[in-house]
Amino acid sequence: MADAVRIAALGGLDEIGINSTIFETDKDMILIDAGLMFPEEDMLGVDIVIPDFSYIYENKDKFRALVVTHAHEDHVGAIPYLLQNVNVPIYGTKLTLGLIRAKLKEFGLENTKMIEIEPSKKFRIGDFEIEPIRTTHSIVDGVGFAINTDVGTIIHTGDFKIDQTPVDGKPFDLLKFSEYGSRGVKLLLSDSTNAGVKGFTGSEMEIKKGLFDIFSNAKGRILLVTFASNIHRLQQVINTALETGKKVCVTGKSMLQNASIALELGYLKTPNGILITEDELYKYPDNKIVIVTTGSQGEPMSGLSRIALGEHKRIQIKPTDTVVISAKAIPGNERAILKIINTLSRKGADVFYEGNSNVHVSGHASQEELKLMINMVRPEYFIPIHGEYMMRRQHAKIAMDLGIKPENIFTIDNGDVLELRKDSAKVVDKIRTGRVFVDGKGVGDVEDIVIRDRIKLSTDGFVVIVVTISSTTGELLSNPEIITKGLLYEEKHQKLLHEATMMVKNLINQSNIDLRTDSYEIKKKIRKAMNKFLFKKLMRSPMVLPIIMEI
Amino acid sequence: MADAVRIAALGGLDEIGINSTIFETDKDMILIDAGLMFPEEDMLGVDIVIPDFSYIYENKDKFRALVVTHAHEDHVGAIPYLLQNVNVPIYGTKLTLGLIRAKLKEFGLENTKMIEIEPSKKFRIGDFEIEPIRTTHSIVDGVGFAINTDVGTIIHTGDFKIDQTPVDGKPFDLLKFSEYGSRGVKLLLSDSTNAGVKGFTGSEMEIKKGLFDIFSNAKGRILLVTFASNIHRLQQVINTALETGKKVCVTGKSMLQNASIALELGYLKTPNGILITEDELYKYPDNKIVIVTTGSQGEPMSGLSRIALGEHKRIQIKPTDTVVISAKAIPGNERAILKIINTLSRKGADVFYEGNSNVHVSGHASQEELKLMINMVRPEYFIPIHGEYMMRRQHAKIAMDLGIKPENIFTIDNGDVLELRKDSAKVVDKIRTGRVFVDGKGVGDVEDIVIRDRIKLSTDGFVVIVVTISSTTGELLSNPEIITKGLLYEEKHQKLLHEATMMVKNLINQSNIDLRTDSYEIKKKIRKAMNKFLFKKLMRSPMVLPIIMEI
Repeated sequence: MADAVRIAALGGLDEIGINSTIFETDKDMILIDAGLMFPEEDMLGVDIVIPDFSYIYENKDKFRALVVTHAHEDHVGAIPYLLQNVNVPIYGTKLTLGLIRAKLKEFGLENTKMIEIEPSKKFRIGDFEIEPIRTTHSIVDGVGFAINTDVGTIIHTGDFKIDQTPVDGKPFDLLKFSEYGSRGVKLLLSDSTNAGVKGFTGSEMEIKKGLFDIFSNAKGRILLVTFASNIHRLQQVINTALETGKKVCVTGKSMLQNASIALELGYLKTPNGILITEDELYKYPDNKIVIVTTGSQGEPMSGLSRIALGEHKRIQIKPTDTVVISAKAIPGNERAILKIINTLSRKGADVFYEGNSNVHVSGHASQEELKLMINMVRPEYFIPIHGEYMMRRQHAKIAMDLGIKPENIFTIDNGDVLELRKDSAKVVDKIRTGRVFVDGKGVGDVEDIVIRDRIKLSTDGFVVIVVTISSTTGELLSNPEIITKGLLYEEKHQKLLHEATMMVKNLINQSNIDLRTDSYEIKKKIRKAMNKFLFKKLMRSPMVLPIIMEI
Repeated sequence: MADAVRIAALGGLDEIGINSTIFETDKDMILIDAGLMFPEEDMLGVDIVIPDFSYIYENKDKFRALVVTHAHEDHVGAIPYLLQNVNVPIYGTKLTLGLIRAKLKEFGLENTKMIEIEPSKKFRIGDFEIEPIRTTHSIVDGVGFAINTDVGTIIHTGDFKIDQTPVDGKPFDLLKFSEYGSRGVKLLLSDSTNAGVKGFTGSEMEIKKGLFDIFSNAKGRILLVTFASNIHRLQQVINTALETGKKVCVTGKSMLQNASIALELGYLKTPNGILITEDELYKYPDNKIVIVTTGSQGEPMSGLSRIALGEHKRIQIKPTDTVVISAKAIPGNERAILKIINTLSRKGADVFYEGNSNVHVSGHASQEELKLMINMVRPEYFIPIHGEYMMRRQHAKIAMDLGIKPENIFTIDNGDVLELRKDSAKVVDKIRTGRVFVDGKGVGDVEDIVIRDRIKLSTDGFVVIVVTISSTTGELLSNPEIITKGLLYEEKHQKLLHEATMMVKNLINQSNIDLRTDSYEIKKKIRKAMNKFLFKKLMRSPMVLPIIMEI
């Protein structure tokens, strides 16, 4: 009998991404999701960001399983990093596991135990009896969870919207959520991503008309980009191609991989002969061709970027092409996307995107759906999850409007531990959390200090001054050498650099012998003088690094 | 008698910003606008961007005047840099000149001759007879120009929307544009910024209701940010404050400066006693206070940022505050703005912005207004100006839909010279144009190569290796010294850095004496070996810079 369940997020409560939430009793611990985040623009040079899993590593012996809601990167992208350090089974639906499996293979973790779950089929992990509940989202086969414990039922929605006409015909399970609601739910954790958006998010079906119009009116080829994981969208494209008599060529590594997994597992319906390969493109007239690839965020190495810039092996833009960007711009990527659109336009292509047509709908619940969720589940306690503070606060306000008591709403941060008992809920502890930067081969070895250096270097560059000094006499053995990058164009500023060299030379020659052989002090003095000199001359403040070579 | 007029843009045809267009005959040259652009995110460390004015400098003797449409930075921000090199009078309306004057003073250019113009009052500059036409935009006192020449009339709209209920009661001059249209217009240059937006842009008046609701319902203070130049918006805030019984405190250098110029010149109506200073804030209860400042783009040094982060001298956020961001996010600034909103929310403030309320309308004409302009002016030739390629292309399509012949539409680039004659128009030349980076004190001394270095440094940092070698024997005089920033956290990677040092030492010791004293060759060898070493160990490629000190 577990007296208390403790819930803490390792991520997802101050960001869009690194979604990962711990549920534990004294005896057992499970983790729902282990997502990554793409670096924000001030995380210079970082490839991806994952949660700090220290708390899990420190409690390895009671860590039983990873349970996954759906296969988006912000929910599953950190799994390989987690499993490199702990070995637990993964519970997920068929497609979710299929997509995770491909990812684990790349990391040599294919021996991980995977347990397939199905909506409305309960399973037990230690103190937790879990029932997956079918939801709808911008990926197929997503679920939320009802977690039945000795202190009551907890519902975790995962990412969801209430799509009443989903492309695969498998609707959001309103009944199951309501059933739990009428039996009594202790705590609801619900997706806050679109808590600031009024109304009801459109069904994935709504973009059908948008696509049909574009496909029907296109003069030549259609080139459509979306997220590789958006199997629904790919299905819509295939359906629309069928209706308009076109063939579909799926290209790009991740797009092909996801499509083939979805096909294999039966999540994608492709009427005979509709799919063609890149090699077969030449066989069809342009107005019979739809090419689907990635690059909706303007990523430089993506299919769309390479095609736009003429760097793709086989596909070049023609003036008769129609490009469809069927995805939302993630904040921060707007300019990169705009650049690609300009490049495509210059080459004559017509470009349709969220800004000028109906080619995308969100995958997340808007305010009316969030209200429905709360009203169906009628929880005693509520935690808005998934989202930046602003969105979670908005979600908390919605809950208050619906009559949840303010003191029962926990707009908690990553690491806050909410202890749930039969008759109470309160924040009792704070565990270690954080963002771990993955940069090249390094996981966590790029610290904030390195990022701060990169930010400095990115705006003002650096100046290295090498001074060789005799360790016995303190005398200068050669002229100081200055090397600078990212500050100014050296060839144009020979005079300034010469002045700087002489300034350092004089500084050393005028110092007494004690200072000259005290490398800490002399460095400090050079740094100060050089900073002053450069600010006066250029009004800039590069990183100044003196090196003293004592010979 | 001028047989031909040549028109070329120095900027504004491949960007939002650096708007600047040359009009010249054999005898005379004028420039309409001289704007700046804020750096795009890959222009690391650049403060502002201005057009390359070389063509003007090379034709100084015939350059007669700068004629200005309105006082937004993207139309006037480069004026001081231009006037540091050429001395011509500036023609502009009263408020426009007032705002420019303040800017020129900062650069010691207050002796510039300024000639005040008025809508519908013609003036002549050499071969050009110019009539300003009143337009409406998100700044007061903007005009377009009808330029009457021997080859016909050219109309340059400037930035505009057709606001039928402007805040200052001075409407867009539909009649004048139509009058020119009925007389016959050779060429129209029209604003393409919103060419991708359907419908009709809302009147500035439309946000009145949005502001009134927020002001009426606020529990405590209102903190409103907008662009400092948006005098209309400030007027609306003052009007709404009056209606809701609040006082207005304008704060921040640029906001105060623009407001006081507008006040002085009679463009801002402030009923007695409505304006208060920061010093007087303490006298009023919170729900009687509106503070207006800058920072709508999340700029780190702006009023709003400093207030949000608790770095403002006098104003701190209270949980009862209401923050209104009454401006559009310029693409690329979305994340910075979102961060500020999160910070404000965490401190308890309610935040209203474009995404969740009606607190902003665009200042640029949407598709229906662009159609009206073309239909009123009925030009023979058309150049879509102001905007990235995608927008200008869209604008060209609109013109085609309205019956302008495709061959009469010139979707030209910066520098393309369109020669207009009585019976023809064609692109005859290409003049030098470009983007000049202003960085600290330097104008144009940060070249692309420096920016490329900054980009490299920003993601992977650098490694400097100093090797001291005897110039006579070629022998190493001390162990190589490695200094690295932005690559890894040095304290954590002592071992790796030691290995790298030994690798370089061995490399030199194993080289023959000729190589050792050939500093070019030995540098090349070290660079190559170090790149390989670091990529293998870290999968990263920092900038590697060997320095050989020969003693």
